[in-house]
Amino acid sequence: MPQSDTVNRRIVLASRPHGAPTPRDFRLDQTPVPTPGDGQVLLRTLYLSLDPYMRGLMDEIGPSYAPSVKLGEPMAGGTVSRVVASKHPRFRESELVLGAAGWQDYALSDGEGLTALGDMAQPSLAVGGLGMPAFTAYVGLLDIGQPKPGETVVVAAATGAVGAVVGQIAKLKGARVIGIAGGADKCRYAVEELGFDVCLDRNDAQLAQRLAEVCPNGIDVYFENVGGVVFDAVLPLLNNYARVPVCGVIAHYNDEAPLPGPDRLPQAMSTLLQKRIRMEGFIILDHYADRFDAFRRDMSEWLAAGKVKLREDVVDGLEHAPAAFIGLLEGRNFGKLVVRVADA
Amino acid sequence: MPQSDTVNRRIVLASRPHGAPTPRDFRLDQTPVPTPGDGQVLLRTLYLSLDPYMRGLMDEIGPSYAPSVKLGEPMAGGTVSRVVASKHPRFRESELVLGAAGWQDYALSDGEGLTALGDMAQPSLAVGGLGMPAFTAYVGLLDIGQPKPGETVVVAAATGAVGAVVGQIAKLKGARVIGIAGGADKCRYAVEELGFDVCLDRNDAQLAQRLAEVCPNGIDVYFENVGGVVFDAVLPLLNNYARVPVCGVIAHYNDEAPLPGPDRLPQAMSTLLQKRIRMEGFIILDHYADRFDAFRRDMSEWLAAGKVKLREDVVDGLEHAPAAFIGLLEGRNFGKLVVRVADA
Repeated sequence: MPQSDTVNRRIVLASRPHGAPTPRDFRLDQTPVPTPGDGQVLLRTLYLSLDPYMRGLMDEIGPSYAPSVKLGEPMAGGTVSRVVASKHPRFRESELVLGAAGWQDYALSDGEGLTALGDMAQPSLAVGGLGMPAFTAYVGLLDIGQPKPGETVVVAAATGAVGAVVGQIAKLKGARVIGIAGGADKCRYAVEELGFDVCLDRNDAQLAQRLAEVCPNGIDVYFENVGGVVFDAVLPLLNNYARVPVCGVIAHYNDEAPLPGPDRLPQAMSTLLQKRIRMEGFIILDHYADRFDAFRRDMSEWLAAGKVKLREDVVDGLEHAPAAFIGLLEGRNFGKLVVRVADA
Repeated sequence: MPQSDTVNRRIVLASRPHGAPTPRDFRLDQTPVPTPGDGQVLLRTLYLSLDPYMRGLMDEIGPSYAPSVKLGEPMAGGTVSRVVASKHPRFRESELVLGAAGWQDYALSDGEGLTALGDMAQPSLAVGGLGMPAFTAYVGLLDIGQPKPGETVVVAAATGAVGAVVGQIAKLKGARVIGIAGGADKCRYAVEELGFDVCLDRNDAQLAQRLAEVCPNGIDVYFENVGGVVFDAVLPLLNNYARVPVCGVIAHYNDEAPLPGPDRLPQAMSTLLQKRIRMEGFIILDHYADRFDAFRRDMSEWLAAGKVKLREDVVDGLEHAPAAFIGLLEGRNFGKLVVRVADA
């Protein structure tokens, strides 16, 4: 089902999920392609980024940093688009832009938050290795995690859009890197392709014990992007003065009510205190102004030199976005998940 | 039961507590007063500081930052002592020193960790307003909490040795200060004597609602020294970029096993993330080298100018230390708890 010149396919929020989203929470509808007014551009989506934070936008009370999606409105999301028509002085027809057109073929924009991309051999990188997920890894690891040579860094979702970059940058900074990923294939990839020192299977019933075995000197930085059982395995191994950047807790995005006990908070707080641990949440939107240039410069260099590798999990066709997104929350993607909505 | 010249009364750890300590976990015994060898001093205890962290020292596996007390050995603790006899070049007979002689009348020291106090009108201040508890407040609030003028600071145990100083320094820095304390007398004292803007009773069944009412602009700094229900009331009110120095979780020191659910950790982590909160444990022992001089200078000034007030809860007699300590863990003290072991 390719893009049409006249019809705008949209994936709209059909109902608010209870727990994990199901296909019925999404609906594909069609509207006419809109016409740009003065000061507007019409965008045609090439790539749509799918990211875990979108789960929060589906709830009635969304996260504090972004408005929740209204019922019947298109799902929100970062996109690489081509300018189809422009009545905006800063953008010209046919150029590539990074924006937030959402889960649809076409969108209007007044230029706010829109960035011209110039020529890119691999435009999807703008929502991956040179975009938000890798930038999240960069800021969280370097500014909050601050790994020193010889320290041990642990990151989960190790082959995901954020985790893979965290681990590779940590290696570049001289740290020992332990990944945690779902399944043998991903673990092999993390070690053989990404250069992690070790990667453990998160489904291993003995995860806590295995992690202790491969961290004989404890853990200095834990990049938290999953929560759940991984945090439990990490907590007792954290060293004095460990840093825990908190970037996501994907394991809990589908929680509907407080989980049953035991209550793990007192132990976490006591550990924080006794080991003088710093735990800090961050939202990458806060850091574009002060850190994005440094990120783009460093990351472009590392990619060009082959020091950081990226794997994309490309899904073809806007209509497959809901299933792909549901799979992302279950860890079924292998690499940065993007939907190729159109070729060019 | 006054001090004797020949008998050393000691409060030793008789058994390791299960949950809250009881009087039977302590035993008063008597040994001969020891004789100092070359390079040693004999100390006679004047004031013994009682502090919540001591609960951790009673467990077989103590906190990471201090060794646990052995069964049959005197309880550990900070003291103001008089040098009775000295074979140490740095200390002379009859001078006042700050040290860690523990819960006993006499102790030997090789001078390590011993500080000459000079003449002090109120020597007990060395373990209170000019010592560890106030220094804890100073470093935790200023270095980690970093309150800005107009921000809202919340501190529990508001009339305690740490909390009272946290609140008063926060006021000096221009913050709005909400205390939480046990009972109407303490609350009145926090507002009328210490100058807190508001103080709420921690036993109020509507604590969470009351706190929300008195924090219309949310909470920017929560100085965590209690844990438990106070943390639950604070968490939903924390603002973006709030700071949470974690200095103690007294509510949990007696926990024997993980508490029943619900599990509060996922919600805490999600809040940390969404609001970009920094939560950081600290142990004051780490900061003596770099921050103690600044603390002593500032605090001496504030005390002299009457800008910071201190209330001591003085218990007379070493033999009453166990009951006083048990009361401290229950919040029965009113001000910095010290045992006057001898007058001079």
